[in-house]
Amino acid sequence: MKLIGPFKQIITLANLPLRGKLSDHQLEIIENGGILIENGKIAEVGNYEKLNTENPAAEKELPDDIQIAVPAFTDSHTHICFGGNRANDFAMRNAGKTYLEIAESGGGIWSSVQHTRNASEEELLKTTLERIDFLISLGITTIEIKSGYGLDLENELKMLRVIKKAQTLTKATLVPTCLSAHLKPRDFEGTSKAYLDYILEQILPKVKEEDLANRVDIFIEKSAFQPEESKAFLIKAKDLGFEITVHADQFTPGSSRIAVEVGAKSADHLEATIDEDIAFLAKSETVATALPGASLGLGEKFTPARKILDQGGILAIASDWNPGSAPMGNLIAQASILATFEKLSTAEVLAGITFRSAFALSLEDRGTLEKGKKADFVTFKTDNFQNILYQQGSLKAESVYIDGEKI
Amino acid sequence: MKLIGPFKQIITLANLPLRGKLSDHQLEIIENGGILIENGKIAEVGNYEKLNTENPAAEKELPDDIQIAVPAFTDSHTHICFGGNRANDFAMRNAGKTYLEIAESGGGIWSSVQHTRNASEEELLKTTLERIDFLISLGITTIEIKSGYGLDLENELKMLRVIKKAQTLTKATLVPTCLSAHLKPRDFEGTSKAYLDYILEQILPKVKEEDLANRVDIFIEKSAFQPEESKAFLIKAKDLGFEITVHADQFTPGSSRIAVEVGAKSADHLEATIDEDIAFLAKSETVATALPGASLGLGEKFTPARKILDQGGILAIASDWNPGSAPMGNLIAQASILATFEKLSTAEVLAGITFRSAFALSLEDRGTLEKGKKADFVTFKTDNFQNILYQQGSLKAESVYIDGEKI
Ligand SMILES: [Zn+2]
Ligand SMILES: [Zn+2]
Repeated sequence: MKLIGPFKQIITLANLPLRGKLSDHQLEIIENGGILIENGKIAEVGNYEKLNTENPAAEKELPDDIQIAVPAFTDSHTHICFGGNRANDFAMRNAGKTYLEIAESGGGIWSSVQHTRNASEEELLKTTLERIDFLISLGITTIEIKSGYGLDLENELKMLRVIKKAQTLTKATLVPTCLSAHLKPRDFEGTSKAYLDYILEQILPKVKEEDLANRVDIFIEKSAFQPEESKAFLIKAKDLGFEITVHADQFTPGSSRIAVEVGAKSADHLEATIDEDIAFLAKSETVATALPGASLGLGEKFTPARKILDQGGILAIASDWNPGSAPMGNLIAQASILATFEKLSTAEVLAGITFRSAFALSLEDRGTLEKGKKADFVTFKTDNFQNILYQQGSLKAESVYIDGEKI
Repeated sequence: MKLIGPFKQIITLANLPLRGKLSDHQLEIIENGGILIENGKIAEVGNYEKLNTENPAAEKELPDDIQIAVPAFTDSHTHICFGGNRANDFAMRNAGKTYLEIAESGGGIWSSVQHTRNASEEELLKTTLERIDFLISLGITTIEIKSGYGLDLENELKMLRVIKKAQTLTKATLVPTCLSAHLKPRDFEGTSKAYLDYILEQILPKVKEEDLANRVDIFIEKSAFQPEESKAFLIKAKDLGFEITVHADQFTPGSSRIAVEVGAKSADHLEATIDEDIAFLAKSETVATALPGASLGLGEKFTPARKILDQGGILAIASDWNPGSAPMGNLIAQASILATFEKLSTAEVLAGITFRSAFALSLEDRGTLEKGKKADFVTFKTDNFQNILYQQGSLKAESVYIDGEKI
């Protein structure tokens, strides 16, 4: 048993609804709180003095200054396993170059595929772990990571094996997702339908066999996979026993509807979702994931998070950290900026990067600070939880705890 | 004499025009470069081996890894001397509360005035220095700081004295600006015209006498000072010998035109500037300063930086760091985000936070790395200057040099 505290404030995020809008008045805020840990789980959260009196034998761990504690964050959508760097794409796009001009100069997503294919497992592992450590430093202890820069059996498995290996080297929880359906690779001979069949017949059985992922993703977009073929693919992937998630409605609407229809766990992006489809999504069990990092990386509009919440949807917020469209990786800055443009309450943002994004990964054991939950939490040297978002990424996390241990 | 290097790249920003658009091809990039320092100034920038051979007696300072060097940055518009904190305003505004509701709950700019008035000089000095240190950590070594939360003789002088005192305690260059015309204080008995006269007759003579600032600013806006009274004020302030700068066109257009007409050194904000006034401003000697931090803090549109550059204007980019509308303070993240939304080249962004923003402060001794300039520069652990903006604030400065000394 270990008692950590006292904290000026503990924001538990407990007892909040999974879906719909939230007001800051709904937040449970424990002043002068303590967190009692047992076997990596939360045994109790409450008044520090009371916990201290009731648990005289508990080991004590005191914050070194005035601090607050909140549940650690879950980034439910990243692409942080990749080779190379697309800084030149970023500069060219900002300088007004077209997608085609960037591709012709050796950039675009295909350059990430080539660099990832050419990278050794060791190289990929090293840079992936560096990015994981950066995310942990922000207070993110649960990280979804997609494949999708391999795009053939060998290299998709390589990426997923790297993620599996990384899991043995970090205390953060990594959630791998097979995104072989990121785009049809240039060197695949056949239709996109044939490539999707190749994923279903060649890649996914191996992914299952080696237990490399239990989630499958697809990028449904004019430039990637088309609605009907994607829907058939998703239904088959689900039949194989995978959970489903979809890159939906980033530039053209329509695919979030497919995500709902196939029972996807989440539909991510949604910058282009039309009002009718927002209503459809918001009534479903499919989590709507806003990716403000892509809006900030591309200079395009934000996911209609306000409308999604107002209509009762389950809103998660994730970084989409990737080398092309979302190179920042700072989920806290991104979520705070989304809040100013979409007018989200602090509670809505915090829920979106904790228990609601954890739900998108089917991890209901975390994201709130209450008895029985995984003791992952993050502290900030401040006297008020509002400062976390107020400083839009400039207030650094002070300490990050995983399973009750400071890392 | 000291030779610092070798750097993988030195981006000198030398030989670029003060105004108008820039392409990255115009950048002077010295591969394997060195910087030769003498008496805090740059004696030479060039090939490291050549400098090393030609200056055998120079002291050597080697970067500890692959690094690049660029001129240190100038943040030409901040309000970092203030008391209190407006995190609750930020949360309320994002939750959809109106300006009036926020003011009624004790927030708004008036709360910053009250906290600043109530703060001792020691308290203000401490927090201002903390913010200066944060900016230095980003590579910003020249920082403009405005008064404007005192709003009476005693407290405006207090703010400016704090900034003057801070200058004795930091190696960064601080440029104080008198913004007593931020808004008419609630407790001033009389019209806004009478308050502007009070500034001219009571405050500015004291500012001159104590040598506290040589720049005067005013917030021209429906909620603050009106165009005609502001123009008369600016002309008189100029007659008193002050350089002029204006908070212009943030929410309603028209005041950038006044800034140009009175010969202001800069017109800052410009989110609402109409096309006709962009053309007028772009032809003038008045620097147009974009403040993306305010757009990100409020969730509103960006300064039309692309149009300003395309029409030949002098574009600076500054943080506007303040407790109300721009609480982030991370100019690098902000400038990179402005680049994605406004489609700015890397060269345009770097110019906007170096020699062009230094020009807005009449500091033509810095902002490029060339013979005779102040040896303020910043290094990054990377092999390519494009990574500075690409990571949108996530790549931290490695070392910051002021007058050739690492701090
Ligand atoms: Zn993605
Ligand atoms: Zn300002």
